Amino acid sequence: MTLEIKSEVKSHGGVQGIYSAMSEACRCPMTFAVYVPPHAKGMKLPVLWYLSGLTCTHANVMEKGEYRAAATKHGVIIVCPDTSPRGEGVADVADNWKMGMGAGFYVDATEAPWAANYRMYSYVRDELPALIAANFPADMTRQAVTGHSMGGHGALVMALRNPGRFASCSAFAPIVQPSTAGWSKPAFEAYLGKDEKAWRAYDAVSLIEDGARLEHALVDQGSADFFLNDGLRPWLLEEACAKAGMPLHVRMQEGYDHSYYFISTFMAEHVAWHARYLGAS
Amino acid sequence: MTLEIKSEVKSHGGVQGIYSAMSEACRCPMTFAVYVPPHAKGMKLPVLWYLSGLTCTHANVMEKGEYRAAATKHGVIIVCPDTSPRGEGVADVADNWKMGMGAGFYVDATEAPWAANYRMYSYVRDELPALIAANFPADMTRQAVTGHSMGGHGALVMALRNPGRFASCSAFAPIVQPSTAGWSKPAFEAYLGKDEKAWRAYDAVSLIEDGARLEHALVDQGSADFFLNDGLRPWLLEEACAKAGMPLHVRMQEGYDHSYYFISTFMAEHVAWHARYLGAS
Repeated sequence: MTLEIKSEVKSHGGVQGIYSAMSEACRCPMTFAVYVPPHAKGMKLPVLWYLSGLTCTHANVMEKGEYRAAATKHGVIIVCPDTSPRGEGVADVADNWKMGMGAGFYVDATEAPWAANYRMYSYVRDELPALIAANFPADMTRQAVTGHSMGGHGALVMALRNPGRFASCSAFAPIVQPSTAGWSKPAFEAYLGKDEKAWRAYDAVSLIEDGARLEHALVDQGSADFFLNDGLRPWLLEEACAKAGMPLHVRMQEGYDHSYYFISTFMAEHVAWHARYLGAS
Repeated sequence: MTLEIKSEVKSHGGVQGIYSAMSEACRCPMTFAVYVPPHAKGMKLPVLWYLSGLTCTHANVMEKGEYRAAATKHGVIIVCPDTSPRGEGVADVADNWKMGMGAGFYVDATEAPWAANYRMYSYVRDELPALIAANFPADMTRQAVTGHSMGGHGALVMALRNPGRFASCSAFAPIVQPSTAGWSKPAFEAYLGKDEKAWRAYDAVSLIEDGARLEHALVDQGSADFFLNDGLRPWLLEEACAKAGMPLHVRMQEGYDHSYYFISTFMAEHVAWHARYLGAS
């Protein structure tokens, strides 16, 4: 796979790049952002994945997430994938930001017309890591994952389903039980079919109920988040973890909303927290 | 003047707000952003002005400037004005980003049709400070100013023309001699008329030649800035300062461009530098 460099700009001592490559999983060109902090020649750095939320591309957190200062401080590469396949011929629903483009939910769709392109689970789990390993100074034995909202769901599911892959998993305002949340249930049904059993593989609470575990998990949630009671409901995750005896740190952050003003506030803490488990500086 | 609160969001412990008020100087509603860090009740905080560059509004630096962490650390209010009057009836030139909306150049225009609204010097110098003093916990005896590109020009001119007002002045890639730079000369002629003598009051190099001085000045300039040799030319400022015996610290930052990736890299340093002169923490 050939990597197209769309831009590379110096920032915080490192290089913030935007890249594109044809995706076999999604059958379209997929754009992503990678920040590589300054490092000694030949050195390989740990990788922190940031999975974005509904309506976002790779660009939102790259512009507003304020992760570069912390990534430079701790010597961690930050990878920010897109949230869905895009382009002509890719299925979409007009005027619906909760399904289709910008709303891939990090699943491998099995239902038409979505199954043709919407394979974000495979893309983020297998295809993009191979690209990162081949093209960046990345130590793929040291990975961690975080994300926001739909991407917080993605981070939890990626870590729960791939034990040993991620040293640590954190999330900002994650959708902890997308299979029952009003804003994600229709997408799950469209992408995965009517049989709700298939949904459990992409639902953090269900995965924990079914035996999956995380060793190091951290969740930040704003108390003034508009979506708190309807779509996010972190207490469902806390209950599942308590029942499973799984340690989980949910921090309710007083007065914060769902925006990048919230994410950027705690980003440096998350990067530092992951750096500990990644054996970074 | 009534202040309309467009939004107030918690971030980095403080409040990032967007406000609007009818401007007498510009004869239109003007939007601006203010970040107020956390502080003890009744406490008044110093103010750092950030003047933005061509094509920007209040929003660009608010979203991409990464100033809030440093503002919270040092207890400094950050005020980000818009770059021009806007709206129906405000003169503009279609498809020209160097004149009209987004390109006020922080001057009081004297020529038609611009003189009707383009009075950004008065707006930023007199009108907006009065609004800030009346509506925020601001200690207006402790002000500093910074800015980027056209806003770096604005910061230098504001500080040079108003001795005693600003404890310190910094700039990111400022247009140091807009009266001779290709991208600003046409705007100066349109706003201020053909008599170039009138331009000197809005030109940092000319103001220094004519006797104005800054006590504490810092300039950061990226060496990979596309506009370096044509529009910015910091050496003209260095030469004028050397001739005038005025101390000036120009830092050529290797490999950095003209974007917010450059600004955000050095923002925390600028805030910390200003905080020293503002008697902040």
